[in-house]
Amino acid sequence: MEKKIKVGVAGYGTIGQRLADGVHLQKDMELVGVADLAPTLSIRALKERGMPYDLYLVDGADKSRFDALSIPVKGTFKDLIGKVDIMLDSAPGGVGIKNKELYDKAGIKAVFQGGEKNSVADVFFHGYANYKLGVGKRYLKLTSCNTTGLIRAVDCLDRAYGIERVAITIIRRVADPGDYHRGLTNALQIDKAPSHQAVDLMTIMPHIQATGILVHTPVTHGHIITVVATGKKKITKEQALEAFRKHPRIRVVSIDEGFLGNASLFKYARDLGNPRGDMYEIGLWEDSIVESGNDIMFAINIPQESVTIPETMDAIRAACKMQEDGAKGTAQTNKYLRIGRK
Amino acid sequence: MEKKIKVGVAGYGTIGQRLADGVHLQKDMELVGVADLAPTLSIRALKERGMPYDLYLVDGADKSRFDALSIPVKGTFKDLIGKVDIMLDSAPGGVGIKNKELYDKAGIKAVFQGGEKNSVADVFFHGYANYKLGVGKRYLKLTSCNTTGLIRAVDCLDRAYGIERVAITIIRRVADPGDYHRGLTNALQIDKAPSHQAVDLMTIMPHIQATGILVHTPVTHGHIITVVATGKKKITKEQALEAFRKHPRIRVVSIDEGFLGNASLFKYARDLGNPRGDMYEIGLWEDSIVESGNDIMFAINIPQESVTIPETMDAIRAACKMQEDGAKGTAQTNKYLRIGRK
Amino acid sequence: MEKKIKVGVAGYGTIGQRLADGVHLQKDMELVGVADLAPTLSIRALKERGMPYDLYLVDGADKSRFDALSIPVKGTFKDLIGKVDIMLDSAPGGVGIKNKELYDKAGIKAVFQGGEKNSVADVFFHGYANYKLGVGKRYLKLTSCNTTGLIRAVDCLDRAYGIERVAITIIRRVADPGDYHRGLTNALQIDKAPSHQAVDLMTIMPHIQATGILVHTPVTHGHIITVVATGKKKITKEQALEAFRKHPRIRVVSIDEGFLGNASLFKYARDLGNPRGDMYEIGLWEDSIVESGNDIMFAINIPQESVTIPETMDAIRAACKMQEDGAKGTAQTNKYLRIGRK
Amino acid sequence: MEKKIKVGVAGYGTIGQRLADGVHLQKDMELVGVADLAPTLSIRALKERGMPYDLYLVDGADKSRFDALSIPVKGTFKDLIGKVDIMLDSAPGGVGIKNKELYDKAGIKAVFQGGEKNSVADVFFHGYANYKLGVGKRYLKLTSCNTTGLIRAVDCLDRAYGIERVAITIIRRVADPGDYHRGLTNALQIDKAPSHQAVDLMTIMPHIQATGILVHTPVTHGHIITVVATGKKKITKEQALEAFRKHPRIRVVSIDEGFLGNASLFKYARDLGNPRGDMYEIGLWEDSIVESGNDIMFAINIPQESVTIPETMDAIRAACKMQEDGAKGTAQTNKYLRIGRK
Repeated sequence: MEKKIKVGVAGYGTIGQRLADGVHLQKDMELVGVADLAPTLSIRALKERGMPYDLYLVDGADKSRFDALSIPVKGTFKDLIGKVDIMLDSAPGGVGIKNKELYDKAGIKAVFQGGEKNSVADVFFHGYANYKLGVGKRYLKLTSCNTTGLIRAVDCLDRAYGIERVAITIIRRVADPGDYHRGLTNALQIDKAPSHQAVDLMTIMPHIQATGILVHTPVTHGHIITVVATGKKKITKEQALEAFRKHPRIRVVSIDEGFLGNASLFKYARDLGNPRGDMYEIGLWEDSIVESGNDIMFAINIPQESVTIPETMDAIRAACKMQEDGAKGTAQTNKYLRIGRK
Repeated sequence: MEKKIKVGVAGYGTIGQRLADGVHLQKDMELVGVADLAPTLSIRALKERGMPYDLYLVDGADKSRFDALSIPVKGTFKDLIGKVDIMLDSAPGGVGIKNKELYDKAGIKAVFQGGEKNSVADVFFHGYANYKLGVGKRYLKLTSCNTTGLIRAVDCLDRAYGIERVAITIIRRVADPGDYHRGLTNALQIDKAPSHQAVDLMTIMPHIQATGILVHTPVTHGHIITVVATGKKKITKEQALEAFRKHPRIRVVSIDEGFLGNASLFKYARDLGNPRGDMYEIGLWEDSIVESGNDIMFAINIPQESVTIPETMDAIRAACKMQEDGAKGTAQTNKYLRIGRK
Repeated sequence: MEKKIKVGVAGYGTIGQRLADGVHLQKDMELVGVADLAPTLSIRALKERGMPYDLYLVDGADKSRFDALSIPVKGTFKDLIGKVDIMLDSAPGGVGIKNKELYDKAGIKAVFQGGEKNSVADVFFHGYANYKLGVGKRYLKLTSCNTTGLIRAVDCLDRAYGIERVAITIIRRVADPGDYHRGLTNALQIDKAPSHQAVDLMTIMPHIQATGILVHTPVTHGHIITVVATGKKKITKEQALEAFRKHPRIRVVSIDEGFLGNASLFKYARDLGNPRGDMYEIGLWEDSIVESGNDIMFAINIPQESVTIPETMDAIRAACKMQEDGAKGTAQTNKYLRIGRK
Repeated sequence: MEKKIKVGVAGYGTIGQRLADGVHLQKDMELVGVADLAPTLSIRALKERGMPYDLYLVDGADKSRFDALSIPVKGTFKDLIGKVDIMLDSAPGGVGIKNKELYDKAGIKAVFQGGEKNSVADVFFHGYANYKLGVGKRYLKLTSCNTTGLIRAVDCLDRAYGIERVAITIIRRVADPGDYHRGLTNALQIDKAPSHQAVDLMTIMPHIQATGILVHTPVTHGHIITVVATGKKKITKEQALEAFRKHPRIRVVSIDEGFLGNASLFKYARDLGNPRGDMYEIGLWEDSIVESGNDIMFAINIPQESVTIPETMDAIRAACKMQEDGAKGTAQTNKYLRIGRK
């Protein structure tokens, strides 16, 4: 077997943990370790689990706090950088751009998450919509959770039937389970339009015109996005369903089955025994699909904590030229993440 | 002055209370009384306020419970029916159709609220969109809260510029303040599409094609609806704003002013000193309006408890031929409800 | 009639608005005006209401923003200070201590709200529990909303039967209606014990031993506090009820009447037609009262936006020696605020 | 090795799934299968997982619905009953009493969950507080989730230092993640006092006097209970902590570590990789413990979905006389569930 690509994860938070788990499942990659700043609950849990991953400390970390808790520390962030081919940077927004200087010096590649500005990277990346642009590039930035899931659905229809225009309404979860500081109580909060997700979609898919409105809601288990997609010609509900059903990263569900809303998908993932109750697929409600002229409208569910993990694995494959063909690259990711078995 | 039209209200709940207040403000109407079944909190409050309205009891009410609380009872529901020209029926869904038999016998008119089936009435009514159809009719049914507010905005654009198609996303509040039994906790719940509001819009405005998706959210202070409206030709943001600003029952607001979401409109109405913190106008966010091809997209706020009151006053004017011209009828309502002064 | 005491309000936010309304109802006081910094929603509503109160601008305010909105400005904060006998300072926490320098120079009195440190004032004040200490004092600080309501109930039992010890659990609402930044979503958050309210109670009532735990909950319509009060001797439920029912600022309610929780009290106040749906009384659930040995346990509801208004009016009477007797002073406040009529 | 005890689970809902998982981990038990009525999300997930457990159908189930989904069915509920020594009945409340007739006929034992009336069973059971009473009994009923966790903490202090009286405030989560029908939105709802948990505690621990108030809150991730416990003599915080830390089913946590509330414990369990993010231990906040006279007050967190699993395993051991000594029986359960390793 070929040499495995060595991967590090910077920032062991909500996304970082899941990136580490994701890399761990890729048989052609090796997770060298994760880096963080403080003994957060996630780091304490890592310790209680018996340190399945090595821990490195970023600049500013107080090692004595880890020692006091008997949490083994393998080295510094620079040590980690020195051992990897590519870093998955899921540090808090704004930190990635600083970390990039270290990656520059060390000559490694990196994939940044949605919190950083687009300018941090050479290419703004989505595994399905523009894999080719990422091949061999040094710095990639992933689309954000909503944009990642949205593009899966729009790209799916676009490839099959051609899409001219989309208008989206993002019903956004405002916090993750376990968050206290980002909450909202008994209010719907609106952002200035157009939403960045619509703008980002146009960056990735420049042949489509997009706009949208985002409304924050006081829930934690997944965004819901309604999409009004205008086809180049009429797309029927049956046609749309046929395309959606073939997509490995889209799970078509229905109210009749018991998927009554976003919390059902989280419940289902817990019942499946998925670690952390995570799901990599977006949900798409069959009974939400309606036609109106050349427009087709439907609703999708975005599992915000885990949805970008597969596309980030795709990004590693592209950046490190593990696979230059997008269809094969995403298929490889799906296989190792066991996506699309249902 | 002409004889005032005598009005009764059946069901003194969330809507019934506000209908009573609304009629009370109409100088050309007389509120004869309200009817209900049990000494609810609303009835207890009526008593603590000193009985500004007379109370009648519907069949099945236990008068001794009212006596025990020293709540004066003026008579039976039939007594009330015998004294009025028209009844505003805001009884729980399904009761109105039974009450209708009593109205039939007594030869009075009635306006039903959204909870009843359309077949209860001769015409499905909206003050702006089809006033003429209600003139002289015996039984009218009001559009529901969301549909009432939605049609205000769509009719406004349609009159000014012509609308062909709308696709709506209803981000629905799931309960009213003070409700315990209709709640939803940390979940977004989706309904089968198309939403009834889109279907109802087509009933009232048959020249427009409409579809939509409804998602329930765990909040109480007003629905938010996003509307994608396809014009017969391009409608600019400036054009849309110009039309919206002229509409007395639409209040154009912005995030910059401090209207951050649905709860801001409730707060503002409380700060205005409006009884119960009610608002008759829908809110429309200036900074939500975006153009995309011939589509114009925007977001509105529906104050679910009070939004149908003005259109119900319009319905009385139409049904009782107090005013046969829609523009004059709605203007008369607005004047008495002090709408459009801002 | 004697000269009215002239009162100003610094900070026209949630509390400031209600203080202004409260002073306005006191026939022996004159509200000179209110001061604020920016054209908030509350100030915009004041303008739409036709400026029932004069507005003054604090240092740092940009008058051109008010001019652009045609909001009349009467003068500066110093102008207001020059015209009043006493200032009700409801500026954001930490600003009151700075304002105090201005009050010092001008030789006026002031009442601070709970957000300031105790050291800002000569006496930490509660209308029922220590009125006498406030008489003639220059600077008073009101107890916070929870402490104000809690002390009403504990002082009521203590006067009637003697209380030795209390242990409280504060189930705290985390935001006010219209707040977006203080939210919490699907989480109960715990504070380090003991809660400041228990400590504050001991400051005001030093003969009672108190402790407590506070838990934040994602709701907006009133705190609920459970109180375990240990009597000097056994207090029965009947005895407790007898005392509570006599207290003008305690409203005894029950689940059977329809008061199912905190939202019912808000709903009831709206149905009463109270401005903003405010209530000055705390609610106390008759069916929550249980005995256990010498302990009596019960639950109260704190309407956080308005509960301190009566005690602040008491504070003005005490500080300005309008009435030196606490029983008469609080009775005068109750009369003007129409408290205790139910 | 001895013959394994054969166990069935009736009702594969929130509790039933976890009971099945729990039995599966006991090396001295064999999970024969689970029974349910309809292809719920949980059953669909079981199928997607590859049917790790056999499925039996209760009376009234429509087998064709399972066939249509290719979900293998092993037999009827009666078939399952015929194969087991003991049934864990987690059917919806009220169904267990009917199932009992079948258990009677078949001569098997059963453990009922909290939803059934106490009269369904020979003994109302808690693994730590009254293990002995369950030994060899035919029908046991488990305490409810709150009572189970509460008794762990109270029994722990009682054994160590002696407790006379407790007064509890239950801040109850109103729904589980994935529930839509039991919600509550922006309201705290109060129950008539005393709460059943206080009454149940006295049934299990008759030497302690208990009372309490329960308030429902709109959250899903665990109840919080504050306990005021009156010791036979003074119990210090240090003493209490010493006892709590030794208890395998109590996890002492602190705000400083990052456990800010109930959602932190759920997050931590997810981060631990526990299936479904479940935790068997109750959380107990070190920084909530306060002393007041002979009273000690503290707050615990109840993971409602999973907390009764260990005590149900204890119940099997007691009923089937697998272990007659409570200390050894609970230790055996803890070992297999890997409790107390932290």
